[in-house]
Amino acid sequence: MAREAWVTTYRIAVIGGTGPQGKGLAYRWAKHGHEVVLGSRSADRAEAAADEIADRLPDATVSGAENAEAAAGAEVVVLAVPYDGHDDLVRSLAAHLAGKVVISCVNPLGFDKQGPYGLDVPGGSAAETAAALVPDGRLVGAFHHVSAVTLWGEEEYLDHEDVLVCGDDADAKAVAVELAHAVTSRDGVDAGRLRIARQLEPWTAVLISINKRYKTRSGTAISGIPGR
Amino acid sequence: MAREAWVTTYRIAVIGGTGPQGKGLAYRWAKHGHEVVLGSRSADRAEAAADEIADRLPDATVSGAENAEAAAGAEVVVLAVPYDGHDDLVRSLAAHLAGKVVISCVNPLGFDKQGPYGLDVPGGSAAETAAALVPDGRLVGAFHHVSAVTLWGEEEYLDHEDVLVCGDDADAKAVAVELAHAVTSRDGVDAGRLRIARQLEPWTAVLISINKRYKTRSGTAISGIPGR
Repeated sequence: MAREAWVTTYRIAVIGGTGPQGKGLAYRWAKHGHEVVLGSRSADRAEAAADEIADRLPDATVSGAENAEAAAGAEVVVLAVPYDGHDDLVRSLAAHLAGKVVISCVNPLGFDKQGPYGLDVPGGSAAETAAALVPDGRLVGAFHHVSAVTLWGEEEYLDHEDVLVCGDDADAKAVAVELAHAVTSRDGVDAGRLRIARQLEPWTAVLISINKRYKTRSGTAISGIPGR
Repeated sequence: MAREAWVTTYRIAVIGGTGPQGKGLAYRWAKHGHEVVLGSRSADRAEAAADEIADRLPDATVSGAENAEAAAGAEVVVLAVPYDGHDDLVRSLAAHLAGKVVISCVNPLGFDKQGPYGLDVPGGSAAETAAALVPDGRLVGAFHHVSAVTLWGEEEYLDHEDVLVCGDDADAKAVAVELAHAVTSRDGVDAGRLRIARQLEPWTAVLISINKRYKTRSGTAISGIPGR
Protein backbone atom coordinates (compact mmCIF):
# COMPACT_ATOMS: atom_id res chain seq x y z
CA MET A 1 0.00 0.00 0.00
CA ALA A 2 1.30 3.44 -0.85
CA ARG A 3 2.57 5.39 2.13
CA GLU A 4 0.42 8.29 1.00
CA ALA A 5 -2.66 6.38 2.15
CA TRP A 6 -1.56 6.69 5.74
CA VAL A 7 -0.98 10.41 5.81
CA THR A 8 -3.32 12.16 8.21
CA THR A 9 -5.25 15.10 6.83
CA TYR A 10 -5.83 18.13 9.00
CA ARG A 11 -8.10 21.11 9.10
CA ILE A 12 -5.49 23.85 8.82
CA ALA A 13 -6.02 27.58 9.30
CA VAL A 14 -3.37 29.73 7.65
CA ILE A 15 -3.36 33.08 9.42
CA GLY A 16 -1.96 35.59 6.96
CA GLY A 17 -3.23 33.33 4.21
CA THR A 18 -3.56 36.17 1.73
CA GLY A 19 0.15 36.92 1.86
CA PRO A 20 2.44 35.16 -0.63
CA GLN A 21 4.03 32.77 1.90
CA GLY A 22 0.72 31.82 3.51
CA LYS A 23 -1.10 31.41 0.22
CA GLY A 24 1.73 29.31 -1.20
CA LEU A 25 1.73 26.98 1.81
CA ALA A 26 -2.08 26.79 1.77
CA TYR A 27 -1.96 25.82 -1.91
CA ARG A 28 0.46 22.96 -1.21
CA TRP A 29 -1.56 21.62 1.71
CA ALA A 30 -4.89 21.91 -0.13
CA LYS A 31 -3.32 20.06 -3.05
CA HIS A 32 -2.47 17.17 -0.75
CA GLY A 33 -5.92 16.71 0.69
CA HIS A 34 -5.81 18.87 3.78
CA GLU A 35 -8.79 21.07 4.51
CA VAL A 36 -7.51 24.62 4.46
CA VAL A 37 -9.04 27.85 5.69
CA LEU A 38 -7.22 31.04 4.80
CA GLY A 39 -7.42 33.67 7.50
CA SER A 40 -7.16 37.41 6.99
CA ARG A 41 -8.27 40.57 8.74
CA SER A 42 -10.79 40.83 5.92
CA ALA A 43 -13.02 37.83 5.23
CA ASP A 44 -13.53 39.13 1.67
CA ARG A 45 -9.83 39.12 0.92
CA ALA A 46 -9.45 35.69 2.52
CA GLU A 47 -12.24 34.37 0.30
CA ALA A 48 -10.67 35.93 -2.79
CA ALA A 49 -7.34 34.21 -2.02
CA ALA A 50 -9.17 30.92 -1.37
CA ASP A 51 -10.82 31.31 -4.78
CA GLU A 52 -7.40 31.69 -6.40
CA ILE A 53 -6.38 28.35 -4.91
CA ALA A 54 -9.68 26.71 -5.82
CA ASP A 55 -9.20 27.85 -9.42
CA ARG A 56 -5.99 25.81 -9.53
CA LEU A 57 -7.32 22.91 -7.46
CA PRO A 58 -10.99 22.30 -8.28
CA ASP A 59 -11.18 19.25 -5.98
CA ALA A 60 -9.60 20.92 -2.96
CA THR A 61 -11.40 21.96 0.21
CA VAL A 62 -10.32 25.54 0.71
CA SER A 63 -12.16 28.55 2.06
CA GLY A 64 -11.52 31.99 3.52
CA ALA A 65 -12.58 33.60 6.75
CA GLU A 66 -11.71 36.35 9.16
CA ASN A 67 -8.61 35.35 11.20
CA ALA A 68 -10.39 34.53 14.45
CA GLU A 69 -13.04 32.43 12.73
CA ALA A 70 -10.40 30.61 10.71
CA ALA A 71 -8.38 29.83 13.84
CA ALA A 72 -11.41 28.82 15.89
CA GLY A 73 -12.40 26.05 13.50
CA ALA A 74 -8.95 24.58 12.87
CA GLU A 75 -6.94 21.74 14.38
CA VAL A 76 -3.66 23.22 13.21
CA VAL A 77 -3.07 26.96 13.01
CA VAL A 78 -0.24 28.31 10.90
CA LEU A 79 1.06 31.80 11.61
CA ALA A 80 2.27 33.19 8.27
CA VAL A 81 2.07 36.85 9.15
CA PRO A 82 4.58 39.70 9.00
CA TYR A 83 6.56 40.19 12.19
CA ASP A 84 5.29 43.76 12.32
CA GLY A 85 2.11 43.47 14.36
CA HIS A 86 2.72 39.80 15.12
CA ASP A 87 2.53 40.04 18.90
CA ASP A 88 -0.78 41.95 18.94
CA LEU A 89 -2.31 39.56 16.41
CA VAL A 90 -1.28 36.48 18.39
CA ARG A 91 -2.59 38.08 21.57
CA SER A 92 -5.93 38.76 19.89
CA LEU A 93 -6.21 35.15 18.68
CA ALA A 94 -4.82 33.51 21.81
CA ALA A 95 -8.13 32.03 22.96
CA HIS A 96 -8.54 30.28 19.59
CA LEU A 97 -4.97 28.95 19.64
CA ALA A 98 -5.04 27.55 23.17
CA GLY A 99 -4.10 23.89 23.28
CA LYS A 100 -3.67 23.65 19.50
CA VAL A 101 -0.75 22.86 17.28
CA VAL A 102 0.45 26.30 16.18
CA ILE A 103 3.12 26.50 13.51
CA SER A 104 4.99 29.78 13.24
CA CYS A 105 6.63 30.60 9.89
CA VAL A 106 7.31 34.17 10.95
CA ASN A 107 10.60 35.76 9.86
CA PRO A 108 11.51 38.86 11.88
CA LEU A 109 13.70 40.58 9.29
CA GLY A 110 14.82 44.10 8.60
CA PHE A 111 16.28 45.54 5.40
CA ASP A 112 18.71 48.37 4.89
CA LYS A 113 21.33 49.31 2.32
CA GLN A 114 23.50 46.34 3.37
CA GLY A 115 20.61 43.97 2.66
CA PRO A 116 18.43 41.83 4.89
CA TYR A 117 19.19 41.16 8.54
CA GLY A 118 17.64 39.43 11.50
CA LEU A 119 15.82 41.75 13.87
CA ASP A 120 16.53 41.72 17.58
CA VAL A 121 13.43 39.96 18.96
CA PRO A 122 12.79 40.62 22.67
CA GLY A 123 11.43 37.13 23.30
CA GLY A 124 14.31 35.45 21.42
CA SER A 125 12.24 34.55 18.37
CA ALA A 126 8.73 35.09 17.04
CA ALA A 127 7.89 31.45 17.78
CA GLU A 128 8.97 31.74 21.42
CA THR A 129 7.07 35.02 21.74
CA ALA A 130 3.91 33.33 20.44
CA ALA A 131 4.47 30.43 22.86
CA ALA A 132 4.56 32.89 25.73
CA LEU A 133 1.31 34.54 24.59
CA VAL A 134 -0.83 31.45 23.93
CA PRO A 135 -2.15 29.45 26.91
CA ASP A 136 -1.18 25.81 26.42
CA GLY A 137 -0.19 26.61 22.84
CA ARG A 138 1.82 23.85 21.26
CA LEU A 139 4.16 26.05 19.31
CA VAL A 140 6.32 24.80 16.47
CA GLY A 141 8.65 26.80 14.24
CA ALA A 142 8.79 25.59 10.61
CA PHE A 143 8.43 26.53 6.93
CA HIS A 144 10.45 29.71 7.33
CA HIS A 145 12.67 29.26 4.30
CA VAL A 146 10.56 28.03 1.41
CA SER A 147 10.17 30.70 -1.24
CA ALA A 148 6.65 32.01 -1.73
CA VAL A 149 7.15 32.12 -5.49
CA THR A 150 8.30 28.51 -5.62
CA LEU A 151 5.43 27.36 -3.39
CA TRP A 152 2.94 28.96 -5.77
CA GLY A 153 4.85 27.64 -8.81
CA GLU A 154 4.53 24.57 -10.97
CA GLU A 155 7.14 22.28 -9.40
CA GLU A 156 5.50 19.11 -8.11
CA TYR A 157 7.70 19.18 -5.00
CA LEU A 158 10.38 21.47 -3.65
CA ASP A 159 12.53 18.39 -3.15
CA HIS A 160 15.79 20.31 -3.50
CA GLU A 161 15.31 21.79 -0.07
CA ASP A 162 14.22 20.89 3.45
CA VAL A 163 11.70 22.17 5.93
CA LEU A 164 13.37 22.61 9.30
CA VAL A 165 11.15 22.14 12.32
CA CYS A 166 11.71 23.09 15.96
CA GLY A 167 9.57 22.85 19.04
CA ASP A 168 9.26 21.65 22.62
CA ASP A 169 6.11 19.55 22.11
CA ALA A 170 7.07 16.32 20.34
CA ASP A 171 3.57 15.53 19.06
CA ALA A 172 3.06 19.03 17.69
CA LYS A 173 6.46 18.88 16.06
CA ALA A 174 5.54 15.57 14.44
CA VAL A 175 2.54 17.26 12.77
CA ALA A 176 4.82 19.86 11.16
CA VAL A 177 7.33 17.17 10.19
CA GLU A 178 4.50 15.39 8.38
CA LEU A 179 3.02 18.53 6.82
CA ALA A 180 6.39 19.12 5.17
CA HIS A 181 5.60 16.21 2.84
CA ALA A 182 3.16 18.33 0.87
CA VAL A 183 5.98 20.80 0.21
CA THR A 184 9.21 18.82 -0.16
CA SER A 185 7.89 15.23 -0.63
CA ARG A 186 9.64 14.16 2.56
CA ASP A 187 9.65 14.56 6.31
CA GLY A 188 10.64 17.90 7.75
CA VAL A 189 13.95 17.85 9.61
CA ASP A 190 13.66 17.93 13.39
CA ALA A 191 16.09 20.70 14.29
CA GLY A 192 15.54 20.58 18.04
CA ARG A 193 13.94 22.71 20.73
CA LEU A 194 11.73 25.74 20.13
CA ARG A 195 14.54 28.16 20.87
CA ILE A 196 16.31 26.95 17.72
CA ALA A 197 13.79 29.30 16.05
CA ARG A 198 16.31 32.01 16.99
CA GLN A 199 18.48 30.55 14.26
CA LEU A 200 15.81 29.35 11.82
CA GLU A 201 13.95 32.66 11.58
CA PRO A 202 16.85 34.97 10.65
CA TRP A 203 18.38 32.31 8.35
CA THR A 204 15.89 33.65 5.83
CA ALA A 205 18.11 36.76 5.67
CA VAL A 206 20.95 34.53 4.44
CA LEU A 207 18.78 33.06 1.69
CA ILE A 208 17.47 36.46 0.58
CA SER A 209 21.03 37.75 0.52
CA ILE A 210 22.10 34.79 -1.64
CA ASN A 211 19.08 35.32 -3.90
CA LYS A 212 20.12 38.90 -4.50
CA ARG A 213 23.74 38.01 -5.20
CA TYR A 214 23.00 35.12 -7.60
CA LYS A 215 19.65 36.32 -8.95
CA THR A 216 18.07 33.03 -7.94
CA ARG A 217 15.66 31.52 -5.44
CA SER A 218 17.86 29.59 -3.09
CA GLY A 219 16.83 26.97 -0.58
CA THR A 220 18.43 25.14 2.32
CA ALA A 221 18.95 21.39 2.20
CA ILE A 222 20.32 19.37 5.09
CA SER A 223 22.73 16.61 4.13
CA GLY A 224 23.42 13.56 6.23
CA ILE A 225 19.85 12.75 7.33
CA PRO A 226 19.63 8.96 7.41
CA GLY A 227 17.32 7.23 4.94
CA ARG A 228 17.42 9.86 2.22
CA MET B 1 43.05 22.85 -19.84
CA ALA B 2 41.79 21.68 -16.48
CA ARG B 3 40.42 24.46 -14.33
CA GLU B 4 42.55 23.12 -11.47
CA ALA B 5 45.63 24.52 -13.17
CA TRP B 6 44.42 28.05 -12.57
CA VAL B 7 43.76 27.75 -8.86
CA THR B 8 45.98 30.07 -6.86
CA THR B 9 47.89 28.53 -3.98
CA TYR B 10 48.28 30.49 -0.78
CA ARG B 11 50.45 30.46 2.29
CA ILE B 12 47.77 29.90 4.91
CA ALA B 13 48.15 30.13 8.69
CA VAL B 14 45.50 28.24 10.62
CA ILE B 15 45.31 29.77 14.08
CA GLY B 16 43.93 27.08 16.36
CA GLY B 17 45.36 24.54 13.96
CA THR B 18 45.71 21.88 16.63
CA GLY B 19 41.96 21.83 17.27
CA PRO B 20 39.83 19.40 15.25
CA GLN B 21 38.23 22.03 13.00
CA GLY B 22 41.51 23.82 12.28
CA LYS B 23 43.46 20.62 11.69
CA GLY B 24 40.74 19.28 9.40
CA LEU B 25 40.70 22.43 7.28
CA ALA B 26 44.52 22.54 7.22
CA TYR B 27 44.56 18.95 5.99
CA ARG B 28 42.20 19.76 3.12
CA TRP B 29 44.17 22.83 2.06
CA ALA B 30 47.53 21.09 2.32
CA LYS B 31 46.13 18.25 0.23
CA HIS B 32 45.30 20.73 -2.51
CA GLY B 33 48.70 22.32 -2.76
CA HIS B 34 48.41 25.23 -0.39
CA GLU B 35 51.31 25.91 1.96
CA VAL B 36 49.90 25.56 5.44
CA VAL B 37 51.30 26.62 8.80
CA LEU B 38 49.41 25.43 11.86
CA GLY B 39 49.44 27.94 14.68
CA SER B 40 49.07 27.16 18.36
CA ARG B 41 50.01 28.72 21.67
CA SER B 42 52.63 25.97 21.80
CA ALA B 43 54.99 25.58 18.85
CA ASP B 44 55.58 21.96 19.91
CA ARG B 45 51.91 21.07 19.72
CA ALA B 46 51.58 22.90 16.40
CA GLU B 47 54.49 20.88 15.00
CA ALA B 48 52.98 17.64 16.29
CA ALA B 49 49.70 18.41 14.53
CA ALA B 50 51.59 19.35 11.37
CA ASP B 51 53.35 15.98 11.56
CA GLU B 52 50.00 14.22 11.71
CA ILE B 53 49.01 15.92 8.46
CA ALA B 54 52.41 15.25 6.87
CA ASP B 55 52.01 11.56 7.72
CA ARG B 56 48.87 11.49 5.59
CA LEU B 57 50.21 13.80 2.88
CA PRO B 58 53.93 13.15 2.33
CA ASP B 59 54.12 15.68 -0.52
CA ALA B 60 52.39 18.51 1.31
CA THR B 61 54.04 21.66 2.62
CA VAL B 62 52.84 21.85 6.18
CA SER B 63 54.53 23.05 9.34
CA GLY B 64 53.73 24.24 12.84
CA ALA B 65 54.61 27.39 14.72
CA GLU B 66 53.57 29.55 17.61
CA ASN B 67 50.43 31.54 16.64
CA ALA B 68 52.12 34.91 16.11
CA GLU B 69 54.89 33.44 14.00
CA ALA B 70 52.38 31.47 11.93
CA ALA B 71 50.28 34.57 11.31
CA ALA B 72 53.27 36.79 10.57
CA GLY B 73 54.43 34.62 7.68
CA ALA B 74 51.05 34.00 6.04
CA GLU B 75 49.08 35.64 3.26
CA VAL B 76 45.80 34.26 4.53
CA VAL B 77 45.08 33.77 8.23
CA VAL B 78 42.30 31.46 9.33
CA LEU B 79 40.86 31.88 12.82
CA ALA B 80 39.75 28.42 13.92
CA VAL B 81 39.78 29.03 17.64
CA PRO B 82 37.19 28.60 20.38
CA TYR B 83 35.08 31.67 21.05
CA ASP B 84 36.24 31.57 24.64
CA GLY B 85 39.35 33.75 24.62
CA HIS B 86 38.81 34.75 20.97
CA ASP B 87 38.87 38.51 21.49
CA ASP B 88 42.11 38.51 23.50
CA LEU B 89 43.81 36.22 21.00
CA VAL B 90 42.81 38.39 18.04
CA ARG B 91 43.97 41.48 19.90
CA SER B 92 47.34 39.86 20.57
CA LEU B 93 47.77 38.94 16.90
CA ALA B 94 46.31 42.12 15.43
CA ALA B 95 49.63 43.49 14.14
CA HIS B 96 50.21 40.26 12.18
CA LEU B 97 46.70 40.29 10.73
CA ALA B 98 46.68 43.92 9.59
CA GLY B 99 45.85 44.26 5.91
CA LYS B 100 45.56 40.50 5.41
CA VAL B 101 42.75 38.24 4.36
CA VAL B 102 41.50 36.86 7.68
CA ILE B 103 38.90 34.08 7.59
CA SER B 104 36.94 33.53 10.79
CA CYS B 105 35.39 30.07 11.30
CA VAL B 106 34.57 30.85 14.92
CA ASN B 107 31.27 29.54 16.31
CA PRO B 108 30.18 31.30 19.51
CA LEU B 109 28.05 28.52 20.98
CA GLY B 110 26.83 27.55 24.40
CA PHE B 111 25.45 24.22 25.54
CA ASP B 112 22.93 23.43 28.24
CA LYS B 113 20.37 20.71 28.93
CA GLN B 114 18.27 21.89 25.95
CA GLY B 115 21.24 21.46 23.64
CA PRO B 116 23.43 23.90 21.75
CA TYR B 117 22.57 27.56 21.30
CA GLY B 118 24.06 30.70 19.84
CA LEU B 119 25.73 32.95 22.39
CA ASP B 120 24.89 36.62 22.59
CA VAL B 121 27.99 38.24 21.05
CA PRO B 122 28.49 41.90 21.99
CA GLY B 123 29.93 42.81 18.59
CA GLY B 124 27.17 40.97 16.71
CA SER B 125 29.37 38.07 15.65
CA ALA B 126 32.91 36.82 16.22
CA ALA B 127 33.83 37.84 12.67
CA GLU B 128 32.62 41.42 13.18
CA THR B 129 34.39 41.56 16.53
CA ALA B 130 37.65 40.49 14.87
CA ALA B 131 37.10 43.09 12.13
CA ALA B 132 36.83 45.78 14.79
CA LEU B 133 40.07 44.62 16.46
CA VAL B 134 42.32 44.26 13.41
CA PRO B 135 43.59 47.41 11.68
CA ASP B 136 42.77 47.15 7.97
CA GLY B 137 41.89 43.50 8.48
CA ARG B 138 40.02 42.06 5.54
CA LEU B 139 37.67 39.86 7.52
CA VAL B 140 35.66 37.06 6.01
CA GLY B 141 33.35 34.62 7.77
CA ALA B 142 33.38 31.09 6.29
CA PHE B 143 33.84 27.36 6.97
CA HIS B 144 31.70 27.46 10.11
CA HIS B 145 29.60 24.40 9.37
CA VAL B 146 31.87 21.68 8.03
CA SER B 147 32.27 18.84 10.50
CA ALA B 148 35.76 18.39 11.90
CA VAL B 149 35.40 14.61 11.73
CA THR B 150 34.36 14.70 8.09
CA LEU B 151 37.18 17.09 7.18
CA TRP B 152 39.70 14.68 8.69
CA GLY B 153 37.97 11.70 7.09
CA GLU B 154 38.44 9.77 3.88
CA GLU B 155 35.85 11.41 1.64
CA GLU B 156 37.54 13.00 -1.37
CA TYR B 157 35.22 16.00 -1.16
CA LEU B 158 32.43 17.10 1.14
CA ASP B 159 30.37 17.75 -1.99
CA HIS B 160 27.06 17.16 -0.22
CA GLU B 161 27.36 20.50 1.52
CA ASP B 162 28.36 24.10 0.91
CA VAL B 163 30.76 26.56 2.44
CA LEU B 164 28.94 29.84 3.06
CA VAL B 165 31.07 32.96 2.89
CA CYS B 166 30.35 36.50 4.07
CA GLY B 167 32.39 39.66 4.14
CA ASP B 168 32.60 43.32 3.21
CA ASP B 169 35.85 43.07 1.17
CA ALA B 170 35.05 41.52 -2.19
CA ASP B 171 38.62 40.40 -2.95
CA ALA B 172 39.05 38.80 0.45
CA LYS B 173 35.72 37.07 0.09
CA ALA B 174 36.81 35.74 -3.32
CA VAL B 175 39.80 34.04 -1.64
CA ALA B 176 37.52 32.18 0.76
CA VAL B 177 35.11 31.31 -2.08
CA GLU B 178 38.07 29.73 -3.89
CA LEU B 179 39.49 28.00 -0.81
CA ALA B 180 36.17 26.21 -0.46
CA HIS B 181 37.15 24.12 -3.50
CA ALA B 182 39.58 22.06 -1.44
CA VAL B 183 36.71 21.14 0.86
CA THR B 184 33.57 20.81 -1.24
CA SER B 185 35.02 20.65 -4.80
CA ARG B 186 33.18 23.84 -5.70
CA ASP B 187 33.03 27.55 -5.03
CA GLY B 188 31.88 28.73 -1.65
CA VAL B 189 28.51 30.48 -1.69
CA ASP B 190 28.66 34.24 -1.31
CA ALA B 191 26.11 34.87 1.43
CA GLY B 192 26.54 38.64 1.59
CA ARG B 193 27.97 41.21 3.96
CA LEU B 194 30.10 40.47 7.01
CA ARG B 195 27.20 40.94 9.39
CA ILE B 196 25.56 37.83 7.89
CA ALA B 197 28.07 36.09 10.19
CA ARG B 198 25.43 36.74 12.89
CA GLN B 199 23.40 34.04 11.16
CA LEU B 200 26.20 31.79 9.89
CA GLU B 201 27.96 31.37 13.22
CA PRO B 202 25.02 30.17 15.37
CA TRP B 203 23.66 28.03 12.50
CA THR B 204 26.19 25.51 13.74
CA ALA B 205 23.88 25.05 16.76
CA VAL B 206 21.16 23.89 14.36
CA LEU B 207 23.46 21.33 12.77
CA ILE B 208 24.71 20.02 16.12
CA SER B 209 21.11 19.75 17.28
CA ILE B 210 20.21 17.77 14.14
CA ASN B 211 23.29 15.58 14.61
CA LYS B 212 22.17 14.71 18.09
CA ARG B 213 18.60 13.95 17.03
CA TYR B 214 19.53 11.81 14.01
CA LYS B 215 22.87 10.46 15.23
CA THR B 216 24.52 11.77 12.07
CA ARG B 217 26.89 14.41 10.82
CA SER B 218 24.67 16.85 8.99
CA GLY B 219 25.70 19.57 6.60
CA THR B 220 24.06 22.53 4.92
CA ALA B 221 23.67 22.68 1.15
CA ILE B 222 22.24 25.65 -0.70
CA SER B 223 19.97 24.82 -3.60
CA GLY B 224 19.30 27.11 -6.53
CA ILE B 225 22.86 28.37 -7.12
CA PRO B 226 23.23 28.73 -10.90
CA GLY B 227 25.68 26.48 -12.71
CA ARG B 228 25.58 23.58 -10.27
